[in-house]
Amino acid sequence: MDELPGALGTSASLALRLGQAIFAVASLLFMCLDIEFYSYTAFCFLVTIMGLVIPWSLTLAAVDAFSVFVKRPTRQPGLLSIIIIGDWVLSFLSLAASSSTASVSDLLMASNGSFCTGNLCTRYQLSAAMAFLSWFLSFASSLFNLWLLPTA
Amino acid sequence: MDELPGALGTSASLALRLGQAIFAVASLLFMCLDIEFYSYTAFCFLVTIMGLVIPWSLTLAAVDAFSVFVKRPTRQPGLLSIIIIGDWVLSFLSLAASSSTASVSDLLMASNGSFCTGNLCTRYQLSAAMAFLSWFLSFASSLFNLWLLPTA
Repeated sequence: MDELPGALGTSASLALRLGQAIFAVASLLFMCLDIEFYSYTAFCFLVTIMGLVIPWSLTLAAVDAFSVFVKRPTRQPGLLSIIIIGDWVLSFLSLAASSSTASVSDLLMASNGSFCTGNLCTRYQLSAAMAFLSWFLSFASSLFNLWLLPTA
Repeated sequence: MDELPGALGTSASLALRLGQAIFAVASLLFMCLDIEFYSYTAFCFLVTIMGLVIPWSLTLAAVDAFSVFVKRPTRQPGLLSIIIIGDWVLSFLSLAASSSTASVSDLLMASNGSFCTGNLCTRYQLSAAMAFLSWFLSFASSLFNLWLLPTA
């Protein structure tokens, strides 16, 4: 089997996973370091999904790091299918969460009332942007793994 | 080549495409049969995306109908790749649009001010639900076509 960059167990995949986790943590930090986020459904959704993405990406990053540094790539098609399905589900959920957050923060900004005290809305938008980047990386790694599936 | 149900040129694919177009039209009708939709960015986004989904799905439904009834399934890998990429892009965009619309209408409903006169917000929610169903069907047909690609 030739090594497809980005598939499970390669260093490119390790980089993708770490990028997902870092962007998800950044999104959580931008969202959670104030008090008001739980009064909006979309923001709670974003926090939930990012809280799911972080352990998932870190676990797979650990698998990749083990496979890169200890040099034992064990790929079973069953395990790969589970990883692909989990990646798909999480990537769709994070896309939905980031677009919900973006639209709600845009609406809060446009209605220039007392919602955005200080630069809260900018932080919401940054959080949505980070979640979007995390979605993009997660989508990339699920595509690479899907490409690998017929050859595994 | 065995006939995979749901792939390009089969009757299942024709049903999927017609379902996408019908749900997209329903979403547009629920959204557009009043005046206020263009004051919210998320709703304009939904209208734009549904306006893209409808001609795309109808064109591919016409291709499928031609292929089913006139019996000439011509599948070139290049054409199939274009259709798959278009399906993916449109499905991601419609997922983002439907979740944006759902979160904005939820926020408008929760803020029980003067935003929802009559049952406007229920119609926004119905429109988001229709867009979500259209996304689901579009995702299904893109998955079937992607499955077909290695064998084409």
